[in-house]
Amino acid sequence: MFNQLGVIGCGLMGGSFALALKKAGLVKHVVGYSKSPSTTEKARRLGVIDTIAESALLAVSGSDIVLIAVPVAASEATFKAICHMVEPGMLVMDVGSTKCDVVLAAKRALRNRLGSFVPAHPIAGKESAGVQHADAALYQGRQVILTPLPQTNAALLQKATDVWSAIGAQVLKMSPENHDAAFAAVSHLPHLLAFAYFSAIAQQPAGADFLSLAGPGFRDFTRIAASDPAIWRDILVANREEVLKQSKFFRAVLHHFEKLVQDGDGPALEKLISQASDTRSQWHMSTPPKSPPR
Amino acid sequence: MFNQLGVIGCGLMGGSFALALKKAGLVKHVVGYSKSPSTTEKARRLGVIDTIAESALLAVSGSDIVLIAVPVAASEATFKAICHMVEPGMLVMDVGSTKCDVVLAAKRALRNRLGSFVPAHPIAGKESAGVQHADAALYQGRQVILTPLPQTNAALLQKATDVWSAIGAQVLKMSPENHDAAFAAVSHLPHLLAFAYFSAIAQQPAGADFLSLAGPGFRDFTRIAASDPAIWRDILVANREEVLKQSKFFRAVLHHFEKLVQDGDGPALEKLISQASDTRSQWHMSTPPKSPPR
Repeated sequence: MFNQLGVIGCGLMGGSFALALKKAGLVKHVVGYSKSPSTTEKARRLGVIDTIAESALLAVSGSDIVLIAVPVAASEATFKAICHMVEPGMLVMDVGSTKCDVVLAAKRALRNRLGSFVPAHPIAGKESAGVQHADAALYQGRQVILTPLPQTNAALLQKATDVWSAIGAQVLKMSPENHDAAFAAVSHLPHLLAFAYFSAIAQQPAGADFLSLAGPGFRDFTRIAASDPAIWRDILVANREEVLKQSKFFRAVLHHFEKLVQDGDGPALEKLISQASDTRSQWHMSTPPKSPPR
Repeated sequence: MFNQLGVIGCGLMGGSFALALKKAGLVKHVVGYSKSPSTTEKARRLGVIDTIAESALLAVSGSDIVLIAVPVAASEATFKAICHMVEPGMLVMDVGSTKCDVVLAAKRALRNRLGSFVPAHPIAGKESAGVQHADAALYQGRQVILTPLPQTNAALLQKATDVWSAIGAQVLKMSPENHDAAFAAVSHLPHLLAFAYFSAIAQQPAGADFLSLAGPGFRDFTRIAASDPAIWRDILVANREEVLKQSKFFRAVLHHFEKLVQDGDGPALEKLISQASDTRSQWHMSTPPKSPPR
């Protein structure tokens, strides 16, 4: 399907995409660039990429598909760095967890080459960052959100849909605005809360004792607090308006719960908890992961 | 080791204790009582209990070990109901997630029979409540906190330690006050936050759309929001002072995070996230579950 994949940012997300395309026989050659030469070297040693590019521009040169997998705040600089090598017919995608800011960066930097860019957000990840955790099955059974623009080339949008589908993902399309509002609610706010909660516990004088007593509920609730700091710094700042809107709403609901706890209002508290508990019990991820095709 | 176990409250916790003791050959006969006759009947049909008792008092009669596994607010009524059948040498334990309130209830209701009571909190559970989910391996590899009183009979405290150890749990002892402070931090607050967060999402007009997009991070973060409403109503109210103290502290830390997000202060935000992320990455449950002995 593709001759050469150029990966800019050879981490977990970029590396897993490269491995998935290789495994599916969708690409002949993978060229990779990372800001840190040791990362690129590791990616090559692990067989995630075939050739090291000395710059983002050189990773794009000769590629017919390009994946930008950098913290979202680095998007504009990356688009600028590759812009004059972006050719018609070349599919350029990102994997950023925020879309309005990445789209704005693309508009500014790519200008008349904007049609090649298909903004993408795969709902996948691990707390263990780094190319050593790259996994050909990472996107299998996951949703991938594409947020095309009016300028997006229709043939390339179809190609993007096809390549994600071919590696086992389910493709959805929506506007960047709707994307950012939804993911502020179901992803960015939970991360903010998990970071804040974990900090609040660890900061206390008895924090270490507390942590030694924590059980399975705590383990699952705080799993996302181990996420990559640079990635999440950028996401929270890039989508700050929606995140803070969600956080404000959460605070109001928390305040209501606290009030009922304070007043010892058992019946009202049970009713509220039941609503949450019932809805959560019935909820399932829309695309449960299939067993990895090993 | 024991002739007869009396279980008051044949749910997940009580049922799992009965199965574990049976499996380990630690008890000859199990008598069970539940408020709802259909629950007790189900427990008998599933082989979790051998005999149905028509009252809490009758579950205690003839038993040398008694486990009270009811929502914590029902503790005092339960102690009162069984009090005059509690004999010296009979080991009576609970499984409540709060200890100061249960201890106070025991002091009030058991009076001169208080020495038989060993307050216990096993750090184990599932979101799926009910005796049909009872599991002989539920306590395997988990911590059990005992909060003995000055009046607690030393031989019975030793028996309690032995029986939990024999079914694979690790026994820790601490004061009821320290217990409640620690579990407000690592268990009760996370549940409160998970309930409030899930409510906040589900209540929004676009809530259903948001939920259809949520991924694995959301799934784990909200798992405890599916917990049993009556159990958690009681825990939050019983331990309200410590819970609200922790919630207040959490709010202050969250506010600090929000401020940095609002200001777009990347470096300070990354530093805070890194502290949480690093500590969480290094954290492990002190007693990881062994593979169940099937």
